[in-house]
Amino acid sequence: MTELYLNGEYLAIEAGKVSVEDRGFQFGDGGYEVVRVYRGEPFRLKEHLERLRRTLAGIDLALPEPAGGVESICRRVLGGLQEATIYLQVTRGAAPRAHGWSDDLRPTIVAYARACSAPAPGSAYTLLTVPDDRWGRCHLKTTGLLANVLAKQAAKKSGADEALFVRDGRIVTEGGSSNAFLVRDGAIVTHPPTNLILDGITRRAVIELAKARGIRVEERPFTPAEALEASEFFMTSTTIEVMPVVRIDRRPISLGPVAAQLRADYARLAGRD
Amino acid sequence: MTELYLNGEYLAIEAGKVSVEDRGFQFGDGGYEVVRVYRGEPFRLKEHLERLRRTLAGIDLALPEPAGGVESICRRVLGGLQEATIYLQVTRGAAPRAHGWSDDLRPTIVAYARACSAPAPGSAYTLLTVPDDRWGRCHLKTTGLLANVLAKQAAKKSGADEALFVRDGRIVTEGGSSNAFLVRDGAIVTHPPTNLILDGITRRAVIELAKARGIRVEERPFTPAEALEASEFFMTSTTIEVMPVVRIDRRPISLGPVAAQLRADYARLAGRD
Repeated sequence: MTELYLNGEYLAIEAGKVSVEDRGFQFGDGGYEVVRVYRGEPFRLKEHLERLRRTLAGIDLALPEPAGGVESICRRVLGGLQEATIYLQVTRGAAPRAHGWSDDLRPTIVAYARACSAPAPGSAYTLLTVPDDRWGRCHLKTTGLLANVLAKQAAKKSGADEALFVRDGRIVTEGGSSNAFLVRDGAIVTHPPTNLILDGITRRAVIELAKARGIRVEERPFTPAEALEASEFFMTSTTIEVMPVVRIDRRPISLGPVAAQLRADYARLAGRD
Repeated sequence: MTELYLNGEYLAIEAGKVSVEDRGFQFGDGGYEVVRVYRGEPFRLKEHLERLRRTLAGIDLALPEPAGGVESICRRVLGGLQEATIYLQVTRGAAPRAHGWSDDLRPTIVAYARACSAPAPGSAYTLLTVPDDRWGRCHLKTTGLLANVLAKQAAKKSGADEALFVRDGRIVTEGGSSNAFLVRDGAIVTHPPTNLILDGITRRAVIELAKARGIRVEERPFTPAEALEASEFFMTSTTIEVMPVVRIDRRPISLGPVAAQLRADYARLAGRD
């Protein structure tokens, strides 16, 4: 049975509760990861943990090493689930509310798993563009996700599957919880891993897969106009893997061979073919 | 005795716990207020509740009206404290983690009070300027406060009392948890209440007090250079009230009569003279 890990204890998921003075609740003061599990095995867990360390370092918080290690916690909360995601969150801990913190706080660590399934074969996304007015440190995977939440809800309300962030009306940065790629002249183009996007683990894997296929990869900013003129467009994330896009706002985009190839390659990487 | 209110129940503050799947914890999906209490009476409570309503409306969340009303909850959690702050937070509630939400969620409401005291007579602040890279909706009082937390911690580490946000190197917006005012040619100047700052309840009260004294008020952006050339500088917030500034980074700023007058006027408004 899957359990929830919270600060050294294993509990039923519903029993997982944190103080209202946890700095994660009052300040969004922490980071998180979502790890995909294929056939019972966490996918690229070390990369996720390394990114979590970088996120926490970016907010001046050291990843505490709990007894048994974060890896073994992740494996234990799986509780035998084969196809799942592990959610892992670390906050600066609980203290009487004040913006500044003292270094003797004990960080809060939460981990739990939920069953999930692979994207349906042949599935594709529609996107809604939204202004990207997020903060300037989107490379840190922190829980200050309200802009993402509102963007994705706006997409959902409009009938779209995902939001596509556009910064200053000029630059396509990424999706509400995914990275964005276009295909042009046979090359794939995606925003470079600057402070304006999260450098997705799936994004990196897809870049590797593309290179292995001899597909040219350009990490550079692109405009909404270039997105609409692309021969293909696709999104990537831990849960949607490689997801072809068939519409951006009201403009249809064609399905094509590059995203289909990378999607199949990714499924193989996940041990699914 | 002061208690904590949480979703219909009154508890000891330490017993106040929320689900790890509360959207406040996982997404920063909610708003809050901090209300000052003078002589047992919440100061401008209706203005705070009105602002909370606006914050929540800005994130598509209606302020739920719990039994007895939010006002009476605020009074009850005071439990007889005379000089205190009431912390009030509303989140979209708990649900299995997904960015988008369904409208049937029950929002989480938390309220509790802590004793506090007035700023020491004669106290003054030193400031550290920090780049303002927060999101574009700072007029909403949401719990996505990590940039503020990091700014205030940087100030603290440098030996300063508060951070002063500077947007794009050009515009002084506000403090880490306060509004910023300069005095020039006898007028007070402060950033207009746009999306780039929180329109503080204390800010508004101080503007009223200034006008009542015949002091000219200019709500317009100003630069760091103008701040350093000001004849006086001061910060305002619910807890620091009117706080004169004596240093910005390494540049001393003079104390002067305008901030002193407004501080005294504010103390009177708080029933303290």
